[in-house]
Amino acid sequence: MPPLITLLTDFGTSDSYIGEVKGVLLSRVHGAALVDITHQVPPGDVRAGQYILSRVWQRFPQGAVHLVVIDPGVGTPRRALAAEAEGHYFVAPDNGLLSSLPGAAHFVSLPIPEGAAPTFHARDVFAPAAGQLAIGAAPAHLGHPITDPYRLPLPAPRSDGTSVAGEVIYVDRFGTLVSNIPGELVEPGVRIKVAGTDVGPLARTFGDVAPGQLVAFPGSGGTVEIAVRDGSAARLLGVGVGAEVRA
Amino acid sequence: MPPLITLLTDFGTSDSYIGEVKGVLLSRVHGAALVDITHQVPPGDVRAGQYILSRVWQRFPQGAVHLVVIDPGVGTPRRALAAEAEGHYFVAPDNGLLSSLPGAAHFVSLPIPEGAAPTFHARDVFAPAAGQLAIGAAPAHLGHPITDPYRLPLPAPRSDGTSVAGEVIYVDRFGTLVSNIPGELVEPGVRIKVAGTDVGPLARTFGDVAPGQLVAFPGSGGTVEIAVRDGSAARLLGVGVGAEVRA
Amino acid sequence: MPPLITLLTDFGTSDSYIGEVKGVLLSRVHGAALVDITHQVPPGDVRAGQYILSRVWQRFPQGAVHLVVIDPGVGTPRRALAAEAEGHYFVAPDNGLLSSLPGAAHFVSLPIPEGAAPTFHARDVFAPAAGQLAIGAAPAHLGHPITDPYRLPLPAPRSDGTSVAGEVIYVDRFGTLVSNIPGELVEPGVRIKVAGTDVGPLARTFGDVAPGQLVAFPGSGGTVEIAVRDGSAARLLGVGVGAEVRA
Repeated sequence: MPPLITLLTDFGTSDSYIGEVKGVLLSRVHGAALVDITHQVPPGDVRAGQYILSRVWQRFPQGAVHLVVIDPGVGTPRRALAAEAEGHYFVAPDNGLLSSLPGAAHFVSLPIPEGAAPTFHARDVFAPAAGQLAIGAAPAHLGHPITDPYRLPLPAPRSDGTSVAGEVIYVDRFGTLVSNIPGELVEPGVRIKVAGTDVGPLARTFGDVAPGQLVAFPGSGGTVEIAVRDGSAARLLGVGVGAEVRA
Repeated sequence: MPPLITLLTDFGTSDSYIGEVKGVLLSRVHGAALVDITHQVPPGDVRAGQYILSRVWQRFPQGAVHLVVIDPGVGTPRRALAAEAEGHYFVAPDNGLLSSLPGAAHFVSLPIPEGAAPTFHARDVFAPAAGQLAIGAAPAHLGHPITDPYRLPLPAPRSDGTSVAGEVIYVDRFGTLVSNIPGELVEPGVRIKVAGTDVGPLARTFGDVAPGQLVAFPGSGGTVEIAVRDGSAARLLGVGVGAEVRA
Repeated sequence: MPPLITLLTDFGTSDSYIGEVKGVLLSRVHGAALVDITHQVPPGDVRAGQYILSRVWQRFPQGAVHLVVIDPGVGTPRRALAAEAEGHYFVAPDNGLLSSLPGAAHFVSLPIPEGAAPTFHARDVFAPAAGQLAIGAAPAHLGHPITDPYRLPLPAPRSDGTSVAGEVIYVDRFGTLVSNIPGELVEPGVRIKVAGTDVGPLARTFGDVAPGQLVAFPGSGGTVEIAVRDGSAARLLGVGVGAEVRA
């Protein structure tokens, strides 16, 4: 089984940066399988990166190493982390990207190697550490343990017993609004409201309504989503991350 | 030889979706080689997906599994398919994506697993089936045989003995217009017309004309293409898929 | 160790082209590891491709084969090349893309196979040659040696003893201006000027200034870069490739 390393960044795919990171990884872990999650996280959007990571990492087999670099503070004194949770390994800046890891996760603070480019820790700090993890090094061998990683959890919905108030936590490329309200919290027949607009009760899928119509359904990530069939709910409603969702 | 799985979707590359599909594939087929064909098919454009698939699949070695998901009807009663043709394997919704497979192809209808997200069959239906095929399961083990897959063939050119009338079936990212007229159907010296504009006789390549000039040539997919050197024929002529091409 | 082939093109990722190239590679080199560097080089921008290649190739392990195709002259009499340098292998059109290879590189001119599509040498000329190299063929077995590859070196900075005059050679997707002035050529305290605008002395990283502010620093590629924290220096200054940089 070749070691498996996933990559999740905001670097885009048009420059040399991802290629340089991959070169470092493959030079250190011959035969590694590299899997791009995405490199299109909006620049510096730690919250979007955190959300995407939370949906993805447990889908991969144990032993996978996840390199996650959305790093607006690169080169400043923010810490560089490696972590382990449920047999998965992670490297990331200490800015909240790993907030969705379970409480039993272990974290270490990575030293910054002499000569690391202050603007490119993905290549010079995180890729070498990911390579070490991929060939079997324990996180504790790479840095010193810490117990206070920066936590920036995604907002939680609030329930008052009669209704649930949440918010949009992600907008996908189709303009679908992903809320933080778990589908199973929504009582049958309850109508969903987004920023004051009534979207109706939960349907099964966007194919259940006519083209151009708004529809809410329990999304594939487990929470309520609001979409427009063959269109964009974000554009139709003029809302984005942070918009109120009620159920 | 690691199993080979190609991916062709309209999911884009900015969200978690492709990462989730790849995680499922790699969890079920350890060491699989995953190859992205494209995830940039225009949302819901089954015809573009079909065209791209038709150009690509036979280039891969036999035994490859092709996951093809452009699926505007996901979660509705449309069937989910697995197929086999010439030693290649396919999973796709039953909406015409596989229309270019040869007549000897075999098709099965896949069951929808309990708990599959109605909006994400790529992850919960097609990826598990692709994984089964990749580790050697026969399509007949995954579902029940069908003989009536939905066929939506690309339009064919018509010849009246003196000229050939076809149409644009695809526009690539350079704005090159790909027609459905096989290059060998065009008699030497015959002039190509696109939506009434005379483009001249077939050249060899766009480098044969000056920058900014229109040129027609037998394209790399076997049919006549119309391009602008260092420019976009689609923009210059203001035409797209469906525009008439005469030769 | 599976053979390693990297791909660097201006084909974009929305059409069938990259998939066709990968199919040819995997049909000829079973189990090859394919690594996308980027396919988003601006169409025909040989200089950008050359710059990206120069930053990337030495990061990969020896034995890697680099397929580099930005090829506005495809199908014209321009030569097709294979090359070897420092244990790395390359295939590319003879248009300057390989100008950054060291002087000791060896080059051969590849024959154009009968039937190669005049508009798609990546698939029909370069991929088969890359496949041959990946399975161990020497470049000299693929074509005849040449000693005059087309050289289009990136511009060099000029120093007059008191200051250094260079220029912007690349703009990345964040709008960061990459100059050709090596960081170590800049005396401590010397102020950087871009197209006449004083950017101040070299900092360490963009995190050293406030959001929205201009900053110059020694970049991760070794040369001076000018950025705007959380913004675009290219847009703020209204400049691009070729703009004068003084230090």
